Amino acid sequence: MLQNPLLDVWKREAVAYTGWLSIPSAWSAEVMAHAGYDALVIDLQHGLIDAAGMLGMLQAIATTPVPSLVRVPWNEPSALMRPLDAGAYGVLCPMISTRAECEAFVAACRYPPRGIRSFGPTRSLVSIGSDYVARAESFALTFAQIETVEGLANVEAIASVPGLTGLYVGPWDLSLGMGLPILGNLLDEDLLRACDTILETAFRHNLVAGIYTKSAEDGVRMASRGFRLVNIAIDSALLQQGAAAEILKARQFKER
Amino acid sequence: MLQNPLLDVWKREAVAYTGWLSIPSAWSAEVMAHAGYDALVIDLQHGLIDAAGMLGMLQAIATTPVPSLVRVPWNEPSALMRPLDAGAYGVLCPMISTRAECEAFVAACRYPPRGIRSFGPTRSLVSIGSDYVARAESFALTFAQIETVEGLANVEAIASVPGLTGLYVGPWDLSLGMGLPILGNLLDEDLLRACDTILETAFRHNLVAGIYTKSAEDGVRMASRGFRLVNIAIDSALLQQGAAAEILKARQFKER
Amino acid sequence: MLQNPLLDVWKREAVAYTGWLSIPSAWSAEVMAHAGYDALVIDLQHGLIDAAGMLGMLQAIATTPVPSLVRVPWNEPSALMRPLDAGAYGVLCPMISTRAECEAFVAACRYPPRGIRSFGPTRSLVSIGSDYVARAESFALTFAQIETVEGLANVEAIASVPGLTGLYVGPWDLSLGMGLPILGNLLDEDLLRACDTILETAFRHNLVAGIYTKSAEDGVRMASRGFRLVNIAIDSALLQQGAAAEILKARQFKER
Amino acid sequence: MLQNPLLDVWKREAVAYTGWLSIPSAWSAEVMAHAGYDALVIDLQHGLIDAAGMLGMLQAIATTPVPSLVRVPWNEPSALMRPLDAGAYGVLCPMISTRAECEAFVAACRYPPRGIRSFGPTRSLVSIGSDYVARAESFALTFAQIETVEGLANVEAIASVPGLTGLYVGPWDLSLGMGLPILGNLLDEDLLRACDTILETAFRHNLVAGIYTKSAEDGVRMASRGFRLVNIAIDSALLQQGAAAEILKARQFKER
Amino acid sequence: MLQNPLLDVWKREAVAYTGWLSIPSAWSAEVMAHAGYDALVIDLQHGLIDAAGMLGMLQAIATTPVPSLVRVPWNEPSALMRPLDAGAYGVLCPMISTRAECEAFVAACRYPPRGIRSFGPTRSLVSIGSDYVARAESFALTFAQIETVEGLANVEAIASVPGLTGLYVGPWDLSLGMGLPILGNLLDEDLLRACDTILETAFRHNLVAGIYTKSAEDGVRMASRGFRLVNIAIDSALLQQGAAAEILKARQFKER
Amino acid sequence: MLQNPLLDVWKREAVAYTGWLSIPSAWSAEVMAHAGYDALVIDLQHGLIDAAGMLGMLQAIATTPVPSLVRVPWNEPSALMRPLDAGAYGVLCPMISTRAECEAFVAACRYPPRGIRSFGPTRSLVSIGSDYVARAESFALTFAQIETVEGLANVEAIASVPGLTGLYVGPWDLSLGMGLPILGNLLDEDLLRACDTILETAFRHNLVAGIYTKSAEDGVRMASRGFRLVNIAIDSALLQQGAAAEILKARQFKER
Repeated sequence: MLQNPLLDVWKREAVAYTGWLSIPSAWSAEVMAHAGYDALVIDLQHGLIDAAGMLGMLQAIATTPVPSLVRVPWNEPSALMRPLDAGAYGVLCPMISTRAECEAFVAACRYPPRGIRSFGPTRSLVSIGSDYVARAESFALTFAQIETVEGLANVEAIASVPGLTGLYVGPWDLSLGMGLPILGNLLDEDLLRACDTILETAFRHNLVAGIYTKSAEDGVRMASRGFRLVNIAIDSALLQQGAAAEILKARQFKER
Repeated sequence: MLQNPLLDVWKREAVAYTGWLSIPSAWSAEVMAHAGYDALVIDLQHGLIDAAGMLGMLQAIATTPVPSLVRVPWNEPSALMRPLDAGAYGVLCPMISTRAECEAFVAACRYPPRGIRSFGPTRSLVSIGSDYVARAESFALTFAQIETVEGLANVEAIASVPGLTGLYVGPWDLSLGMGLPILGNLLDEDLLRACDTILETAFRHNLVAGIYTKSAEDGVRMASRGFRLVNIAIDSALLQQGAAAEILKARQFKER
Repeated sequence: MLQNPLLDVWKREAVAYTGWLSIPSAWSAEVMAHAGYDALVIDLQHGLIDAAGMLGMLQAIATTPVPSLVRVPWNEPSALMRPLDAGAYGVLCPMISTRAECEAFVAACRYPPRGIRSFGPTRSLVSIGSDYVARAESFALTFAQIETVEGLANVEAIASVPGLTGLYVGPWDLSLGMGLPILGNLLDEDLLRACDTILETAFRHNLVAGIYTKSAEDGVRMASRGFRLVNIAIDSALLQQGAAAEILKARQFKER
Repeated sequence: MLQNPLLDVWKREAVAYTGWLSIPSAWSAEVMAHAGYDALVIDLQHGLIDAAGMLGMLQAIATTPVPSLVRVPWNEPSALMRPLDAGAYGVLCPMISTRAECEAFVAACRYPPRGIRSFGPTRSLVSIGSDYVARAESFALTFAQIETVEGLANVEAIASVPGLTGLYVGPWDLSLGMGLPILGNLLDEDLLRACDTILETAFRHNLVAGIYTKSAEDGVRMASRGFRLVNIAIDSALLQQGAAAEILKARQFKER
Repeated sequence: MLQNPLLDVWKREAVAYTGWLSIPSAWSAEVMAHAGYDALVIDLQHGLIDAAGMLGMLQAIATTPVPSLVRVPWNEPSALMRPLDAGAYGVLCPMISTRAECEAFVAACRYPPRGIRSFGPTRSLVSIGSDYVARAESFALTFAQIETVEGLANVEAIASVPGLTGLYVGPWDLSLGMGLPILGNLLDEDLLRACDTILETAFRHNLVAGIYTKSAEDGVRMASRGFRLVNIAIDSALLQQGAAAEILKARQFKER
Repeated sequence: MLQNPLLDVWKREAVAYTGWLSIPSAWSAEVMAHAGYDALVIDLQHGLIDAAGMLGMLQAIATTPVPSLVRVPWNEPSALMRPLDAGAYGVLCPMISTRAECEAFVAACRYPPRGIRSFGPTRSLVSIGSDYVARAESFALTFAQIETVEGLANVEAIASVPGLTGLYVGPWDLSLGMGLPILGNLLDEDLLRACDTILETAFRHNLVAGIYTKSAEDGVRMASRGFRLVNIAIDSALLQQGAAAEILKARQFKER
């Protein structure tokens, strides 16, 4: 059976840098899988990707050793079970604000008696291995996204839910919730304080702390604070910025 | 009826810079359409895009004023007529090596008595305008790709085919055909000489000269030589390079 | 940034007539977008369209200035947020029966502190504008469908939820719920009385009143009662009726 | 209007044997529809099929007289209503553990005043018949899956919900929940006792008892116990086993 | 095995009226299949439909007894064989201008020794019957479209190709080729004379004569001239016209 | 760079057994890729798979070390180049009847100066390796299908085309062409004689001989004759036979 390489990364106390996928294309996913990231996150919430698109992307990424995580659209059992059945190495669940929400989230990802995950890992039995069920608990990662003011207030209770892999900061939602301007560069003092609270709570509970950023620069800063699952790039944005930079170069020349 | 803005660009003796689309996704196409290019080329030959994908991408790009060209997979009537019926502003036809091939190409793009294009511009009548048929001849651009040694030898005869909009250099195929190494930066003397031959032939025949390059730097150099339809970026490559650059930045930090 | 043209229609105290989309095709959506309606409604509840289909249809309609509304399948956060992230000009939420349901609906469509909408308007930032977030509250319309007996009883409480754009009558469901026969022509006295109750409640709360009908004739009658978002045609039905009419004409001739 | 042939099977006190569909392909579904089963089950929970895939598969199966059931991903109104609107002959709802859950499930499948199903059987009106709504209650089957320990404990209360068609045993989930090893051959005594409890409860309430098995051998054993909707094959597994058997035969020869 | 019902229609000397499909949707195809036409034509040339779309539409139509014909994009072996393998009841081949072209067309549709059709009727063996190959020659209809001036000149030679089912007039292309204005109502004297030439040639060779029109009115006129496969409606146009008519009715009221 | 493992198989003088894919699904392809075959053949000619489907299947198979071959729909440059650009390990070209046809086939698969393959191995550069172009000639296999009487007569000339990897017998088409009944078990004397002629010609030219069969039994017989690329199973047929066997078992029991 396949191992989840992220567990090794964290055993080595290293940082797993991820790329974020919002383009619904198995080809762009395969390109990203060859770029050198420690894992990719398929975003079913704000990415323009649905369940069928996810399946093709999970397959495309699985042509490489890079593990795929899936950010589900909402804390709903079927939304959580589907990617795990389809071969995802773990899930990120948005908008976890209370301990009860986190318990429901984790329960949906764990087989009885630990949880209520329904049996039927159709692709995982093939792509991960025939002993998947016995090892699903350690294999399938569960990250609760802390990205509301209520979630921040309840972070201690959330972190204490058994079976949780980690806490994952959603800084844009958190900014909005805290009444801060939407900040691209993660420099706001209040926001950083909130990040550190989440980080420290994760440490105290032996959880992995993760965070979404949009650049290597921000990502490295967050990694140095202690985050161990750090997003540093988004496919749509890479395309957007790369395309704009190239045409700008050409235009500037024209104008000289 | 919509006008073809590329005609205006060339009337102003300006250069039209294009982006190249090989990701089969209407979303990535829409992102590219907002990046500032003068036109986009949907590549049905080497891009991983089929006819259904093309339709969605033509629609996505048409949410902006940016015109869409389609590079067809081969010089075949149905391959040429399909994008023109679907609202493309023009087509690039690969591997034109003889005058007869060029005549067949242009004929497939022109209604009788000029050619053999079959009537049925299903989407063009809606997306471009109800008077499309009357104006299709000037609207729908036809670029013959010169990218074989034979095509280079026959460039004069090819350029003299009535109804042709332009000659388009495919430097990678041409390099291969000339026995040159595949060059990323278009600096080979022999290749440049071939490019100039094509360029000059185009000028003499009042045709637009176009060329495929992979960067603004190369594109600007080619524009300064006289090319007027110049590709400077490819979606897959922008993604690939952007993604690699970001993870490299993060890794380098780690290693310090 | 794009404006929501429906707001202008209503400022002029005019009626916005809509077409309803249940065929999962970006091409039929584009055809409908050229037909002259004030807006189109993509029906993810009873139409045979899923999230991926919606995306292509939103793009196809956006090749014209016609705004797209999305009727979501159910009052669920992810179902509501997804179309708003994908560039919809507003959502219709079915089966709102209580004030609590309406509050949950509106909250899912509004960013904090007004609501709980999660940040990530991936396509809206591109298709509507980079200042989308700041203006999302006024841009993104929220219509609560009143179509149950319970909803009718609670209409006053529902209408008083802050942030709601309008009340939208679902006359077929309401008929069923009231124990009436399914009426195609909206002539039942009891049903009309219920419609008027909803209409008057909307007026009292400065909300837009909308209603689903299947024909211009019914739509105009409802517009004259005061409804301002009035559906008058459904794509599948137009096809069905048009096709049947044509073959009937041919058959009748044959039989003479 | 089409009749639901499963009702006839059960009137004859016969067993309906089903095939299970988890491959998202209308072509493989059509092949299965010609194989001789009494019905097919499209699995939207653990199968790799989404709503768009389901639609194509419902159409493909409807090229034959074989009825299609849909196993929905979760007990949610929109998940239940969608297949019924799209022409399914019934639904299986996973993980029903309490009477309240069963009531919610059945209500979502029944029009008022019996339930809360929203009006809009877009495809059913075409594929099943224009009098669909009047006959939907008897036509559209509702099977509650008993597959948790809690569901087993509450089976009496679940079975007494009016409007329910049958109880359907999910033996793999039930095994997991009961702390049994995952058994492929349904021979565990405790599990069989649980199956019989469900079966007898169904009988007492005039409900159809159904069960999922993976082979004709197991299916026939379960049919002989009294189950009347019995799955005996899964498309992915048939492919897997058939493919493995053929290459094994070839390899064995090679090694001789 | 299924019979081809069009053969019966013509045995009765009746007219087969068809609807034309250019919307790439299996749902709209199914709606059209219930509208009462004698056959439907899936247009892979000017319709916005590709091979994958065709498969879903063939399946959707096969939920009814209505036969499906496919208009292929061009006279190419693979384009002709693909729909016949996928269960089409016949093909229309565009732009047949010479006897040699017609021979190539018919050969591609007939198994050796009559032709060169390659063996592999994957879906036809399932959807039409296991004895498909033995009966394919009479089952699979072959219509040569006469729609060029050259084709008109060669109609006698084209009609004499053994194995051809019929001649099919493409009046729009023919108009263009004859230098006539594009006529929507088929009233031009010269065009009608050309139509009659084709019709009479078909009669003399015991072939079925067919023609494309856009309305029952035109279709009936053409049927009365002797055409026996007569198109009278197009899905996109029905939608377009129906939608425009409804909004016009509503707007007119508003303006009163 | 990836190696083509089929070359190793043949170096060891072993037989490569293949499975045939005609179901357009990346999931069924992935299942087949885990079944133990030496290679899989994606059939774009008679399988119900188009170019977009092929891409997803190539990706799904590439999650395992199993190489993918593609049988193209016809001997056309774009049909041949597309799979090679998309990461296929080789192509089978149907209906090669003359030396000229074979030369055209091989030329389309080889870069200049050996052939006319156009440069643009978009996915192959990523999935196979960045040095793909330099090694494409040995990597990308080319099999000419001998399946017409004419091809059989010209087999010597066909086999002598430089750059060809092998000859591949299509016994069903060959049977049809030879006027034999369609035989499922490859026992006809005349057919076997033809197979042996092709086999011996292949040997004399140092080519790999391949053949399509439908079962391990037939495949092993053919392997023992000397064929080295031997198909023994088809996905649709495995499903069909497996499904029929299971329901037959259940029915037989019922009837006892």
